[in-house]
Amino acid sequence: MSKKLVIGMFGFGVVGQGLYDIIKTKDLNLAIKKFVIKNPDKKRSLPAELFTTDANAILEDPEINTVVELIDDAEAAFEITKRALSSGKNVVSANKKMIATHLEELTEIQQQYGTSLLYEGAVCGSIPIIRNLEEYYDNELLHSVSGIFNGSSNYILSKIFNENQSYDVALKKAQDLGFAETDPTLDVGGYDPKFKLAIVASHAYGIYINPDEILNLGIDTLGDADIRYAREKNYKIKLIPLAKEVENHQVVLYVLPKFITNANILYNVENEYNGVLVKAAFADEQFFLGKGAGGHPTGSAVLSDITALRYDYRYEYKKHLDAQQVKYTKDYTIRVYFRYEDENVLENIEFINISERFYSENHKYVIGTINLQEIIDKRSVIHQQGNFIAEII
Amino acid sequence: MSKKLVIGMFGFGVVGQGLYDIIKTKDLNLAIKKFVIKNPDKKRSLPAELFTTDANAILEDPEINTVVELIDDAEAAFEITKRALSSGKNVVSANKKMIATHLEELTEIQQQYGTSLLYEGAVCGSIPIIRNLEEYYDNELLHSVSGIFNGSSNYILSKIFNENQSYDVALKKAQDLGFAETDPTLDVGGYDPKFKLAIVASHAYGIYINPDEILNLGIDTLGDADIRYAREKNYKIKLIPLAKEVENHQVVLYVLPKFITNANILYNVENEYNGVLVKAAFADEQFFLGKGAGGHPTGSAVLSDITALRYDYRYEYKKHLDAQQVKYTKDYTIRVYFRYEDENVLENIEFINISERFYSENHKYVIGTINLQEIIDKRSVIHQQGNFIAEII
Repeated sequence: MSKKLVIGMFGFGVVGQGLYDIIKTKDLNLAIKKFVIKNPDKKRSLPAELFTTDANAILEDPEINTVVELIDDAEAAFEITKRALSSGKNVVSANKKMIATHLEELTEIQQQYGTSLLYEGAVCGSIPIIRNLEEYYDNELLHSVSGIFNGSSNYILSKIFNENQSYDVALKKAQDLGFAETDPTLDVGGYDPKFKLAIVASHAYGIYINPDEILNLGIDTLGDADIRYAREKNYKIKLIPLAKEVENHQVVLYVLPKFITNANILYNVENEYNGVLVKAAFADEQFFLGKGAGGHPTGSAVLSDITALRYDYRYEYKKHLDAQQVKYTKDYTIRVYFRYEDENVLENIEFINISERFYSENHKYVIGTINLQEIIDKRSVIHQQGNFIAEII
Repeated sequence: MSKKLVIGMFGFGVVGQGLYDIIKTKDLNLAIKKFVIKNPDKKRSLPAELFTTDANAILEDPEINTVVELIDDAEAAFEITKRALSSGKNVVSANKKMIATHLEELTEIQQQYGTSLLYEGAVCGSIPIIRNLEEYYDNELLHSVSGIFNGSSNYILSKIFNENQSYDVALKKAQDLGFAETDPTLDVGGYDPKFKLAIVASHAYGIYINPDEILNLGIDTLGDADIRYAREKNYKIKLIPLAKEVENHQVVLYVLPKFITNANILYNVENEYNGVLVKAAFADEQFFLGKGAGGHPTGSAVLSDITALRYDYRYEYKKHLDAQQVKYTKDYTIRVYFRYEDENVLENIEFINISERFYSENHKYVIGTINLQEIIDKRSVIHQQGNFIAEII
């Protein structure tokens, strides 16, 4: 009943190596035939004949029916994925940027060629959220999907709140441990969770929104005054992407830091863990927890996708094809805490209502409601050193 | 793309009423045509023509393509389900006893008639664990599935450990609130979680084990001495069903109370919540949390199953059909805490090794390892007032 997979893999990092090791020991009816790598001179732990730098060794090998794409470069990954899908090969990818940016075209190619692209590993590591949104939660009944989608920034926030570290010290530690990149902007700036949010939104509500159209503000300007404020109120700060139906068939999407209390289940999601919170009519809250960052969690999702391809599993994208009536909106009122340095900045931003205002020598903030569109319009004013914005209940 | 569903529903309790209400307000491309109920004289909140006591009004109506079965009686539910599936209708059921007991025959009927039986609501309320086991976790890679599958006994244990209540007081409270039945044996004796475990095992490992063949011991003989013991050690006691691969292709299944520490994620699953912990190669732990007991959580799972039938979703049972090599074993060493009253009882039970032994006027216990088969053989000796057994790490 299960189809024998012959796999060609692009990239041979932690994930690829781990996959190879586990596939070897298990009776999974699949084999890795070839790795395409960038650097032919690097020493490899496997026989040299498994490696090549020539993409065609995979893409033009008719025996290879499955491509696993694990490279960093989103555009190169897109080209590989397109070629593979168009030539009858199924693809597994964990490249969130590639998927988020090109999902519409990738969906069409799959329809056209009858091939399957799976990417559970692109969103929240080992948590099978894409399939659950695709298969289990009808968009009519889905109130919201949110959570902690980025292990690096969550690790930093955990160090800050549980071990009293400053932002800079915590970031440095995360970098030393390999939980954050040398240029951490993708993570702490909220870009990585935004790519994941765009993918989540497509499987939750059937809408394909270019990540450029989605607001993301991160924790990169988080300061000691904000941390002190959170502590005084028994809050933690978490970086939270949100997809939410705000009115009938209108969906709002954004990534913002958020003050949360211990009544929120995300409060206890710490370090490199990811958590996804699904609110649905009738079901209340559903919560999914698993490791988000690192080679193994991603590898496990990739492996689940690979094993599913033995049974020709594919995303049907039925919400996208069926439910065209769902619309993306940026007209949504958010309650925020906004710390600022310069009074001119505050004067330039139009709040709907300001309910609290605080001045001291080294901490000035307001708490009030503001329209999402206004945050988007004033993003460059809001997002500068000296300022920090976060959602607050 | 989605198929219009015309539904006949058996039973009109909390779940049925809630389903009707939500279906009415949403654009789901489905309608409930008829309810079959037992008592024609009961006052109903809906027009009388929707109700009948005649099962044939649903089973012989060719317009009805979907049967939702929400009655208590497992054998009556089985007859309805068989007839519906054999006459080309798909079925959604939440009857765990019916499914657990008859799954093999129900699988065959589905294969034979090309119909689909879904039962996510039968296991852990709103948590979509069956589909995730069916679709996402390859049995080759699955180390274990465990968790808290029974909201009633978990509610009682939460009251005991968080509010210092005795077992009897907590049970009474659970009964008053409708979280436990007048005869609570099904829940506190571990039968309900055992039915769920049998279903979980079939989708996790492809093995169909009659629930009579699975050991269940519950919390019904839990005493103050055990609670005190747990508190002293900072343990909580939870009632835990376990499906675990113990050696290559051998699976062990049992339901036992267990002492757990706060390092276990199930430690904080409280009250009527259910939690499922999946351990898989490479993925570490995955955790799913949601409400387990009550009409709404079950209703939400039933509704998800109904909406999935619009797209002809079905369980493929591929692990069962493919992986016949997996075997059920009862030869497994467990470490237990055993509190006993009568020395003769202890002498009658063969431990592999006893590592701790305690006597006092009103508390006698041993801690040691024992074979699962021995617990099964001595079940009636172990399970009597004055004794309590629980797994301990």
